[in-house]
Amino acid sequence: MNDIRLTPTREDKFAFGLWTIGHIGRDPFGDPTREPISPSDFVNGLDEVGAWGVSFHDDDLLPPGTSASERENIKKSFRKALDDTGIVVSMATTNLFTMPCFKDGAFTSNDPQVRKFAIQKVMNSIDVGAEFGAPTIVFWGGREGVEAAGSKYPLDALERYREAMNFLVGYVKDQGYRMKFAMEPKPNEPRGDTFLPTIGHTMAFIETLDDPSMVGLNPEVAHETMAGLSFYQGVAQAIWQKKLFHIDLNDQKIGRYDQDLRFGSEGIKDDFFLVRLLERTGYSGPKHFDSRPYRSEHGEGVWEFARNSMRNYLAFAAKAKAYDNDPKVKEAESLAGVDALANETIGKYSKALAEKLKAENFDYEQLAKRNYFNERLDQLAIDHIFGL
Amino acid sequence: MNDIRLTPTREDKFAFGLWTIGHIGRDPFGDPTREPISPSDFVNGLDEVGAWGVSFHDDDLLPPGTSASERENIKKSFRKALDDTGIVVSMATTNLFTMPCFKDGAFTSNDPQVRKFAIQKVMNSIDVGAEFGAPTIVFWGGREGVEAAGSKYPLDALERYREAMNFLVGYVKDQGYRMKFAMEPKPNEPRGDTFLPTIGHTMAFIETLDDPSMVGLNPEVAHETMAGLSFYQGVAQAIWQKKLFHIDLNDQKIGRYDQDLRFGSEGIKDDFFLVRLLERTGYSGPKHFDSRPYRSEHGEGVWEFARNSMRNYLAFAAKAKAYDNDPKVKEAESLAGVDALANETIGKYSKALAEKLKAENFDYEQLAKRNYFNERLDQLAIDHIFGL
Amino acid sequence: MNDIRLTPTREDKFAFGLWTIGHIGRDPFGDPTREPISPSDFVNGLDEVGAWGVSFHDDDLLPPGTSASERENIKKSFRKALDDTGIVVSMATTNLFTMPCFKDGAFTSNDPQVRKFAIQKVMNSIDVGAEFGAPTIVFWGGREGVEAAGSKYPLDALERYREAMNFLVGYVKDQGYRMKFAMEPKPNEPRGDTFLPTIGHTMAFIETLDDPSMVGLNPEVAHETMAGLSFYQGVAQAIWQKKLFHIDLNDQKIGRYDQDLRFGSEGIKDDFFLVRLLERTGYSGPKHFDSRPYRSEHGEGVWEFARNSMRNYLAFAAKAKAYDNDPKVKEAESLAGVDALANETIGKYSKALAEKLKAENFDYEQLAKRNYFNERLDQLAIDHIFGL
Amino acid sequence: MNDIRLTPTREDKFAFGLWTIGHIGRDPFGDPTREPISPSDFVNGLDEVGAWGVSFHDDDLLPPGTSASERENIKKSFRKALDDTGIVVSMATTNLFTMPCFKDGAFTSNDPQVRKFAIQKVMNSIDVGAEFGAPTIVFWGGREGVEAAGSKYPLDALERYREAMNFLVGYVKDQGYRMKFAMEPKPNEPRGDTFLPTIGHTMAFIETLDDPSMVGLNPEVAHETMAGLSFYQGVAQAIWQKKLFHIDLNDQKIGRYDQDLRFGSEGIKDDFFLVRLLERTGYSGPKHFDSRPYRSEHGEGVWEFARNSMRNYLAFAAKAKAYDNDPKVKEAESLAGVDALANETIGKYSKALAEKLKAENFDYEQLAKRNYFNERLDQLAIDHIFGL
Repeated sequence: MNDIRLTPTREDKFAFGLWTIGHIGRDPFGDPTREPISPSDFVNGLDEVGAWGVSFHDDDLLPPGTSASERENIKKSFRKALDDTGIVVSMATTNLFTMPCFKDGAFTSNDPQVRKFAIQKVMNSIDVGAEFGAPTIVFWGGREGVEAAGSKYPLDALERYREAMNFLVGYVKDQGYRMKFAMEPKPNEPRGDTFLPTIGHTMAFIETLDDPSMVGLNPEVAHETMAGLSFYQGVAQAIWQKKLFHIDLNDQKIGRYDQDLRFGSEGIKDDFFLVRLLERTGYSGPKHFDSRPYRSEHGEGVWEFARNSMRNYLAFAAKAKAYDNDPKVKEAESLAGVDALANETIGKYSKALAEKLKAENFDYEQLAKRNYFNERLDQLAIDHIFGL
Repeated sequence: MNDIRLTPTREDKFAFGLWTIGHIGRDPFGDPTREPISPSDFVNGLDEVGAWGVSFHDDDLLPPGTSASERENIKKSFRKALDDTGIVVSMATTNLFTMPCFKDGAFTSNDPQVRKFAIQKVMNSIDVGAEFGAPTIVFWGGREGVEAAGSKYPLDALERYREAMNFLVGYVKDQGYRMKFAMEPKPNEPRGDTFLPTIGHTMAFIETLDDPSMVGLNPEVAHETMAGLSFYQGVAQAIWQKKLFHIDLNDQKIGRYDQDLRFGSEGIKDDFFLVRLLERTGYSGPKHFDSRPYRSEHGEGVWEFARNSMRNYLAFAAKAKAYDNDPKVKEAESLAGVDALANETIGKYSKALAEKLKAENFDYEQLAKRNYFNERLDQLAIDHIFGL
Repeated sequence: MNDIRLTPTREDKFAFGLWTIGHIGRDPFGDPTREPISPSDFVNGLDEVGAWGVSFHDDDLLPPGTSASERENIKKSFRKALDDTGIVVSMATTNLFTMPCFKDGAFTSNDPQVRKFAIQKVMNSIDVGAEFGAPTIVFWGGREGVEAAGSKYPLDALERYREAMNFLVGYVKDQGYRMKFAMEPKPNEPRGDTFLPTIGHTMAFIETLDDPSMVGLNPEVAHETMAGLSFYQGVAQAIWQKKLFHIDLNDQKIGRYDQDLRFGSEGIKDDFFLVRLLERTGYSGPKHFDSRPYRSEHGEGVWEFARNSMRNYLAFAAKAKAYDNDPKVKEAESLAGVDALANETIGKYSKALAEKLKAENFDYEQLAKRNYFNERLDQLAIDHIFGL
Repeated sequence: MNDIRLTPTREDKFAFGLWTIGHIGRDPFGDPTREPISPSDFVNGLDEVGAWGVSFHDDDLLPPGTSASERENIKKSFRKALDDTGIVVSMATTNLFTMPCFKDGAFTSNDPQVRKFAIQKVMNSIDVGAEFGAPTIVFWGGREGVEAAGSKYPLDALERYREAMNFLVGYVKDQGYRMKFAMEPKPNEPRGDTFLPTIGHTMAFIETLDDPSMVGLNPEVAHETMAGLSFYQGVAQAIWQKKLFHIDLNDQKIGRYDQDLRFGSEGIKDDFFLVRLLERTGYSGPKHFDSRPYRSEHGEGVWEFARNSMRNYLAFAAKAKAYDNDPKVKEAESLAGVDALANETIGKYSKALAEKLKAENFDYEQLAKRNYFNERLDQLAIDHIFGL
């Protein structure tokens, strides 16, 4: 493993949100442990560590209540930092969760005024995103859910969710913005149960929109993992359905509060297969880290965290390549029949095929005798992860 | 609560699978504790407890290796029991998991012969289902998954899964059977990670089929609950997307092995809202119990279990009705704004509406002051569950 | 169920912490939704809803940085409210988690100065508790844990934890305070992995202290439930080991962030058996609610939440009594052999008994035939919960 | 990493149970996929792969119903295989879960005859263990639990559990066997909720026995992990309390059915720290693998699985050594203050120390400014795991 490249280049398209490395370290039980980082300092920091893109919530860049002139100043200095460094805005998103007015939801609040305000806030956020050339608008519906199941009839909530998404697609098209939307599922937290809790539920929902082609997914490692679902398998289905528009890389233990750990630091095997999948399918969007340093870190520690997030991705990519080139892996894959799964089983239905199939005689006891050597294949993945 | 009806009628459409009440009580660590019940005894038992329908896997009715004449005898006596009792066959399904040949999957086995055998087995199973008038064929892909992530490229697996489903839809149409398919998701067990792990992933997959109208869902309480997802919310989305073709009622604790507990015995609040939803939306399919008595029960104990499964459904239905008629609930719903969520937020996109919305001025601090009284509303659900 | 008492009396010993009903509704993703309630208003509110006791963290009552004279004023007005209402201080505890200096732990911080400060802070907190007559000091070691496993050698951490507990027991004895300590376990959040994560780990730790008799448990529904453990069974073991010194009642779904839901609103069956156990064993400590209203509530809503927490306890207590008096329950218990488990199996070891037992011939096939009727017994619990 | 030793020697003390590699591949949904391996073939297989010890349940070696003469034959050929190979019997245990008579529990069955039979069965199992020189008897109380909470009063169950353990300790002492007992906790499966669900609960229970010194723990990776608890931290507490008598190595995802995966194949980071802990504390007992090959494997595949279980342990041990010798690790540990946690905070209580501490003035804002560099330290663990 001597020749692994562990230092990022712009071509790697690594991106970080302002709220990630810049997280001030507040948690439900503790006060902030870090000072905020200004957007322009943040961009300069990203440049130094070799990242390529930056993303933001509307309120990260332009806090609510900022005056018009302050807004211009902030945007000017942010723009300057972007220009100076070549860092691109890889995505923009809207904060529909911090303000107390969203305590009952945003697009699905029971209060019609809140719902309208939420849509307006996204329109403004889209405008800012467009101004900075963001190609993707992410939607995380963190407050779209319930603690008290009786407080929202879920069929109504889904209607309102759809209405808002359709309206906003209409707005983007009307404005002529070259943007797409990426929805980010999460099963719970901060709400007891979130609508559209997983990659699957969200993809199914998207199919009901007026223009499904405009909307895809922004899946996040931590969010699927909270529910014990394989992020790797979920992303694979999203790719298969051509809905992987953006991705949030971080890490998480199953069945816990949202941890947003450093990518590669926890679910190591699933992460390895994820990176292999992204590389293999030629995913060309941002590799966006939605994680935050432990609360114990500040100063250089948070930038080290950023470097190591990218380092782990690159390590996995190199290991995945080595795995795929390893003759022992090829042999084990062959014994497992991995490639054979790419071949059609029988093809498109016809009466003739059906009759032929029905007449076949399968020796199912013999078929049961096959040894798939999956233990061997899995260990080879471990060996490559371990660098053995 | 004096006048609650707790005894089932045929109109309730309660159904049980042969493998449920009839489960012999084997578990991964213990030998069987009960004798098998013959299909015809089973039907007679269902009749006595007031059920309406019976379902079966092909192998439950006709074990592999049964000779042609035995098959006819079994079917004849099963038919007789159905005729004698008026019990209907409410669903049929295919066992693609018990035989050792399926250890690597059925539709997604890496072995092409196993894949073909699996499709053939379903065709035969469909024929038996058709013979007994089953309106729905359930697909539980219990072995479609992996322990070793490297053993199947998931995009290939999804292709093969789709190919099989398309082929079988073709078969049903070609045969002129009046049937639909219902897919049953499960996140894991017996495989480490299952393809199509949730209601959402399965609905998204169905949209990619040649004829999505032929295929819906058979969601199961235990399966969504294992992943900590709200079954109630998931079923609501399935109804909203018109995909609730069948339902499996049982119970389960989050984050555990598949428990298949008696419906109503564990996730009481979620169950209450589920029954309310089914009743409210006029779900007219079978209420099918896919559960099994504790291993400590046999004889009359297993039939008591069946009675209590139905009893709990009826109790929830009565409580849901009382809840919906309770003026205190109506008042709390009004304070929470439940009905207001049914109203359009803004409507279909138009430039004029967008401009108008952008110009609006929202007093978000004022909007934050609203008290939604969700604690009150939730407690009223508890009160009704408690019969207070 | 006509004659159930659902209104609390002082004899019920219901208590609430200042931080519970008074929680301002901040969460990791949202700003506060409620105004703080002053300690004296809080006490008056408790009086109105019929509670008996109040508890506090040192910082709830006397925020860090409060001047000496302000402290006296706060204490005076708090004392007055207590005297006016008869509300007692049922417990005091120390906040060792909010201040940023505790980001690496308190008793187990790697920084020796932080460790000393933590012990000093508890001593001061104990003094305030003593001043108000608190019979119990609770210890929640929310920050005693790690995200990075390598950051603390766990054997050292446990040594430091023990050292701190021993020192503080020494302090209480030396001061002549009539107090005991109650440790509150939690598996994770806000730290990735907490030391002493469960009731069991904490009881085992207590046995290693210099004076185990001074230290017991304050188990919390939500904390055991997060890990999917039965709170009911855990509390039973604590009672069996004479370590239930205090209890925190609330509610929670398995495998989630710390929800602190209204007691009785989620894990209904486990809650029912818990209350039955507390009543049956004559638990005489405070019934302390460590929960908080949904973020959507304020004003009268939060007091309704308090009322309903107590109401649910009382409802369970009444239902438990009815269950225990129900002849059908007695019969089912008899069939299940519940009482027979109270009888000795064989008694204390002696060679004679051992020889006699070894010579016995057990017909294990016959023993397997027993029907335990657990489904019936469990359904009777459901029936009583449902008020049927 | 060129010079890592990945091939086991006898000094490594790797052991496997007859039921592990020899598992026939039955699961709750599928029939067996493998032939049984005879005990003597098993021992020879272990010898070939370089293991040191073998363990067994009474019924693995001597199935129930085996005649006296058959028993002698089995034992003779097993003894021969041990003698031929030098493989030692590292542990023996009793199957108190497979027989249907144990469906309601063994030591805690409500049926007194079952309880007596269970104790007798363990006495006989201990005799066989003694005959083969097993130094440890493991107790896994897989059936000691409930699905229906009302079916056992837990205080009675704990009494009976204690009575049985005390009796059996008495038996071992009386017989003069040089053995100790190791209890193996598990939170659930096959029972809904198990008594003594975790390392902690079991250690606490042991303290209540007549002779706690005779009884320790056999913790298992999969069992603690099912509940989302850190196995590493749990084992550390067991070591700290001198109760680590035996250990079961395997792997598992959180919140799932009991997976018994190959050690090192899933929870990689926790496994790394676990092996480091075992090596560092000089754990000298067996490294016992309680895992089983995927159902897809047979023949040479199951032995490859065994080899890779040991290989992963050795890889972790080598990586742990390299980590501990790495100057970058030492530097990061120093910045994190790892060693400083080994130093006393204040020492044993005295009035003088207390007064001095109370008088100290801590600048808690300054203390909060420390950067612990835990991200760096954690990444160094990842780097060593990755072999970078």
